[in-house]
Amino acid sequence: MRSDPPRSAETVADVGEFALIRRITDGRRQPAATLLGPGDDAAVVAASDGRVVASTDILVAGVHFRFDWSPPEQVGRKAVAVNLADIAAMGAVPTAVLVGLACPSGTAASVVDELSAGMWHEAARARVGIVGGDMADSATLVISVTALGDLQGRAPVTRAGAMPGDVVAVAGKLGWSAAGLAVLGRGFRSPVSVVGAHRAPEPPYAAGPQAADAGATAMIDVSDGLLADLAHLCAASHVAIDVRTDLIEVHQRLVDVASALGADARHWVLTGGEDHALAATFPEPAAVPDGWRTIGTVTRGTDVTVDGGPYEGATGWQHWR
Amino acid sequence: MRSDPPRSAETVADVGEFALIRRITDGRRQPAATLLGPGDDAAVVAASDGRVVASTDILVAGVHFRFDWSPPEQVGRKAVAVNLADIAAMGAVPTAVLVGLACPSGTAASVVDELSAGMWHEAARARVGIVGGDMADSATLVISVTALGDLQGRAPVTRAGAMPGDVVAVAGKLGWSAAGLAVLGRGFRSPVSVVGAHRAPEPPYAAGPQAADAGATAMIDVSDGLLADLAHLCAASHVAIDVRTDLIEVHQRLVDVASALGADARHWVLTGGEDHALAATFPEPAAVPDGWRTIGTVTRGTDVTVDGGPYEGATGWQHWR
Repeated sequence: MRSDPPRSAETVADVGEFALIRRITDGRRQPAATLLGPGDDAAVVAASDGRVVASTDILVAGVHFRFDWSPPEQVGRKAVAVNLADIAAMGAVPTAVLVGLACPSGTAASVVDELSAGMWHEAARARVGIVGGDMADSATLVISVTALGDLQGRAPVTRAGAMPGDVVAVAGKLGWSAAGLAVLGRGFRSPVSVVGAHRAPEPPYAAGPQAADAGATAMIDVSDGLLADLAHLCAASHVAIDVRTDLIEVHQRLVDVASALGADARHWVLTGGEDHALAATFPEPAAVPDGWRTIGTVTRGTDVTVDGGPYEGATGWQHWR
Repeated sequence: MRSDPPRSAETVADVGEFALIRRITDGRRQPAATLLGPGDDAAVVAASDGRVVASTDILVAGVHFRFDWSPPEQVGRKAVAVNLADIAAMGAVPTAVLVGLACPSGTAASVVDELSAGMWHEAARARVGIVGGDMADSATLVISVTALGDLQGRAPVTRAGAMPGDVVAVAGKLGWSAAGLAVLGRGFRSPVSVVGAHRAPEPPYAAGPQAADAGATAMIDVSDGLLADLAHLCAASHVAIDVRTDLIEVHQRLVDVASALGADARHWVLTGGEDHALAATFPEPAAVPDGWRTIGTVTRGTDVTVDGGPYEGATGWQHWR
C-alpha cells in the first residue's frame, strides 16, 4: 500500500519550518472569535459563555487516509471535519481549530500547501479559524487536530442522558464513506458521490446545536459506525437501543454501488464509519427537529439491536484490533 | 539510533484502543476547571473570563525524544510541560490538556501506561486535568498535546509589545537541557541534574502570569534557544535586543559538565533549547518581578546581539534544517 505523501522538487526541508508556517497562515482571514491568531506562543479564542468545548483527533497516513486515494486537499478537509463533528456532537458551535503536522523531510512542500488549503476550506465551511499549530519532522505523516467550541449557554449534550422511551434520530449521511472506501478498495475512482464522501465527509455541524436546542437527551458523532457508536451511547446511558431497518433510509446511489460491487448497502449504513453523521436521542417524536430522521427507540437493557435482534457481523472500528 | 519504544509481552494491540483509554483515564482526579472530562465526544473546560488560550505541540519519537535516553514517564512529563509553557508565556494560567497518541501496534502497553503517568504527573504539577485525547495506529510514535489556559482578565502578553528602553529578563533554567543532551550524546547517564533537566524540563508556569501582572510588554517561551527565541520576539516587536553576558548566570554545575566534555557552558545557556524558561521584556528595571533575572536591554534595530556584537555559531533549532 502506498501511503507516503507525494514527492516533488521542493520539499518541506527546502522551505524550512518557519517559512512553511508563514506561507500557510499569512493573509488568512480569521473570524471574530479569533482574538489572537497564529504566530505567538499560543492563540486566544473567545469563549463567550465562560466554558470551552475541546476535542483532539490524531490521523495517520496509511491508516486514516491514503494519498493515493485522497488528494492532500481532501485529507486536509477530512482532518478538520472529523474533529469539528465532535464539537457539534456536544451541542456546541465550533469556534477554532489548532493543527499539528509531523511529516518526513522529503515531503513535497506542495503537499503541505494542499493539506492546508483543505483545512482552511473546511474551517471556513464551519466559520472557524485555524488559530495555531505546530510542525515537526517524522518518518510517518501524522496530523493532529484540536477543535474548540462554544455552547452559547446550552448544557452540553453528552452520551449519558438517554432514557427508555426516547426516540433515536440521525442527521447527516450514513454509509456513504464506507461505500466510497469499498469503491476505492476495488481500484475504482467513481462514482464521485461516494468516493468524495469518503475522502472529505461533510458533517452536519449545525444539527448539533439544533438538537441541543430541541431537547436532545444524548448525542454522539458517528465516527466508528452507527451501531458501534450507538453502543457507546447505550453504555454511557445504561440503556438499550433498537434500530428499525424500515426507518433506515438507504439511498438509491448506495444500493446501486453495492449492487455493482456485490456488497450490502444496508451493512454500510449500519456499520460504516467516517461519515460523521450525528446520532441523538429525543424525549418524544415531536421533539425530533427538521432534518433529523428517526431510526429507532431507546429501551431498557444494554444492547443495540436491529429489528429486535442482534446484528450479525462486525459493527465498528477500533485501532490495533 | 534506537528510537522505537520498548516492547514487552502485552502490547497496545492486546489491550485494544478503548480499554487502553479507560485504563489511563479512569479514576484520575480532575480539577474544578474540568466541567466534563474524558469519555465523551469532547471535553468541557471552564474559561472564566470569556476567552481561552490554546496551543498545540507535536512530539516525535527519535526527533524530540529517544526512549533509550528518556524513560516513557519522563517523555510524558516533557510532552505536557513544553505545551503548558506556551500557555504561561501568554500570561495565562493553564487549565487543561488534551493528548493524542499514535504508536505502533507492537508498542508495550506499559509504555503507554508510563507515558500517561508522566503526563498526569506534569498536569498535576500545573494543577490541570487531562480532559481528552485520541489514540491511533502509526509506524512512528507521535504525541500531540494541546493545552488550554485562562488569562483571568489579563491582556495576553504577546511577542510583539517590546519597546526600546525595556529591560529583558528570564525566569527558569537556561542551558541545563542542552547540557543533559550533550551528556547523553556522549553515552553518559549522569550528572542526574542535567540529564533530568533534558528528560523532563520543569517550566516556571507561575512566572508567566506573574510577569503579565508586573507589566511585561512582551514574552516568549524559550524552546528553540535563548538567542533564537529572543530573535522571534525582536521580529514580532520590531526591536533589537542586546544580551549582556556579565548578567547571564552560568551555574557551576554547567561549568563543571562543560569542562568534563570540553564544551562551552555559556553556549548552552545562550543557544540551548528545551528548558522552557520564559523570557520577557519589562518597561523598567523596577518592574522585573522576584525570581526573574535581568539579562539585557531592548534597543532600536532588528538583531539580537551579545555584548554589543553578533553571536558566532548556530543559535537555535528548526525542523527539517
